[in-house]
Amino acid sequence: MAENYKKNKVAFQGEIGAYSEEAALKFFNKDVKTIPCATFEDVFRLVEKGKANYGVLPIENSLEGSVGQNYDLLLKTNLKIFGELILRVEHCLIAEKGVKLDSIKDVYSHLQALGQCQEFLKKLNVRLIPFYNTAGSVKMLKTKKLKNSAAIASERSARVYNMNILKKGIETNKKNFTRFFIVSKKEKGQTKNDKTSIVFTLKHSPGTLYKALGIFSICDINLTKIESRPIIGKPFEYNFYLDFEGHYKDKIIIEVLEILKQNCLFLKILGSYPKAKIEF
Amino acid sequence: MAENYKKNKVAFQGEIGAYSEEAALKFFNKDVKTIPCATFEDVFRLVEKGKANYGVLPIENSLEGSVGQNYDLLLKTNLKIFGELILRVEHCLIAEKGVKLDSIKDVYSHLQALGQCQEFLKKLNVRLIPFYNTAGSVKMLKTKKLKNSAAIASERSARVYNMNILKKGIETNKKNFTRFFIVSKKEKGQTKNDKTSIVFTLKHSPGTLYKALGIFSICDINLTKIESRPIIGKPFEYNFYLDFEGHYKDKIIIEVLEILKQNCLFLKILGSYPKAKIEF
Repeated sequence: MAENYKKNKVAFQGEIGAYSEEAALKFFNKDVKTIPCATFEDVFRLVEKGKANYGVLPIENSLEGSVGQNYDLLLKTNLKIFGELILRVEHCLIAEKGVKLDSIKDVYSHLQALGQCQEFLKKLNVRLIPFYNTAGSVKMLKTKKLKNSAAIASERSARVYNMNILKKGIETNKKNFTRFFIVSKKEKGQTKNDKTSIVFTLKHSPGTLYKALGIFSICDINLTKIESRPIIGKPFEYNFYLDFEGHYKDKIIIEVLEILKQNCLFLKILGSYPKAKIEF
Repeated sequence: MAENYKKNKVAFQGEIGAYSEEAALKFFNKDVKTIPCATFEDVFRLVEKGKANYGVLPIENSLEGSVGQNYDLLLKTNLKIFGELILRVEHCLIAEKGVKLDSIKDVYSHLQALGQCQEFLKKLNVRLIPFYNTAGSVKMLKTKKLKNSAAIASERSARVYNMNILKKGIETNKKNFTRFFIVSKKEKGQTKNDKTSIVFTLKHSPGTLYKALGIFSICDINLTKIESRPIIGKPFEYNFYLDFEGHYKDKIIIEVLEILKQNCLFLKILGSYPKAKIEF
């Protein structure tokens, strides 16, 4: 039976219409109330304080790489990863109704989105103006009623602000996906198709990373991602973030983590959650 | 005998007075002509075209993590890493001469620098205005002769633009270091105190990362960093960037890389260079 998330509150970073909000609505089947937040930290805080049931956070993009700040915040929170979602990022050129493509002189969006649409924008011969986020640039166009201007954002943000899509799918590389984590105080039970995320600090002796990965290899546990992040205050020492298949309550995983601990100064389970499919 | 770099041209990203320029002058003992570039790509291009002898690029910061864009550019270039330098980042509050600390209302700088000085700025009760880079914000204050305004940047940038330092060392965390790579067409010979950087793509079979790291472990080669970056166009597949001790012309390293290749779809040596000390 599908879970019922009706009336649940879901926090996300960005303006209404942001890709993170789209991820939230896809994950929860539109049954939830979304709450926009100014920063990723605010998303964590709202869920930690019980003012939201869930938080949705981008964790990596297939073109740009990992969102380091969210990895750092996961290290500190007592929330667990409840789910993951992979969203196809499709950028649209958006303007006020009645504005035509050949009258556009200025294009506003997040610097990353401008970069991802470079080839399309080159042909337009327009001025590029970096803005703090994508959906926010659509909202700004709407509020200021700017003529000869367009924004780059999601299809949904055009609908939300009642604006016109001049062109859809303007990104250079179509293999543009963002992976999101859903965090919560609640934990997700075993589904036999799970992934687990952990973070650890290795003891200072040669070959410890090799030994740590060896435990997984010997037990035939498939690693899906490894990420190193600097430890704040310890220049050029790193925490390792590892994703692997299985649930932390599975018998074999319990044993593996017990052995891994012996090679670590610190180990934290960030959560176990059903594996995502790529969403189109 | 120390090398003589006189009249060599060194490209860096940012405005005159940037931390990257400081790194260049420290590495080459002030004997060189520095060339400011708008983007990291421009730095690579200038050296590739022979218009500069060297390029200086930030590769990781001890608080913020890796500079993913430069890892991606290293993958594509035919330049080699010629050296590394670790620079202590010390932020200063800078204003026009005669402007007093208690008259400051607006503070301009790169968003990252504003974040790193948060505790100091909270006490000042000022408005924070993000700017595209640190030294550029000092230049802008100078050009526009803004009153009641200050910028956050390096001590050197205050000297360069003939401005006044209101307060030095305003960063919250003093363990703030940036590691730079110096890239060139030239290669650096063996010094017996070297590091090597490589990038590789593993074959798709279980445990390949474990096996790859095992080769280093068995041969007692010390790994100093591992970094994964998404492969553009292959969502959620990764290239691994590895730093280890030794020179790629050392007999043992030649053998290790030969074995490693058998586990890889792709392997590239980014360069071998003398290990950096932390510079204060």
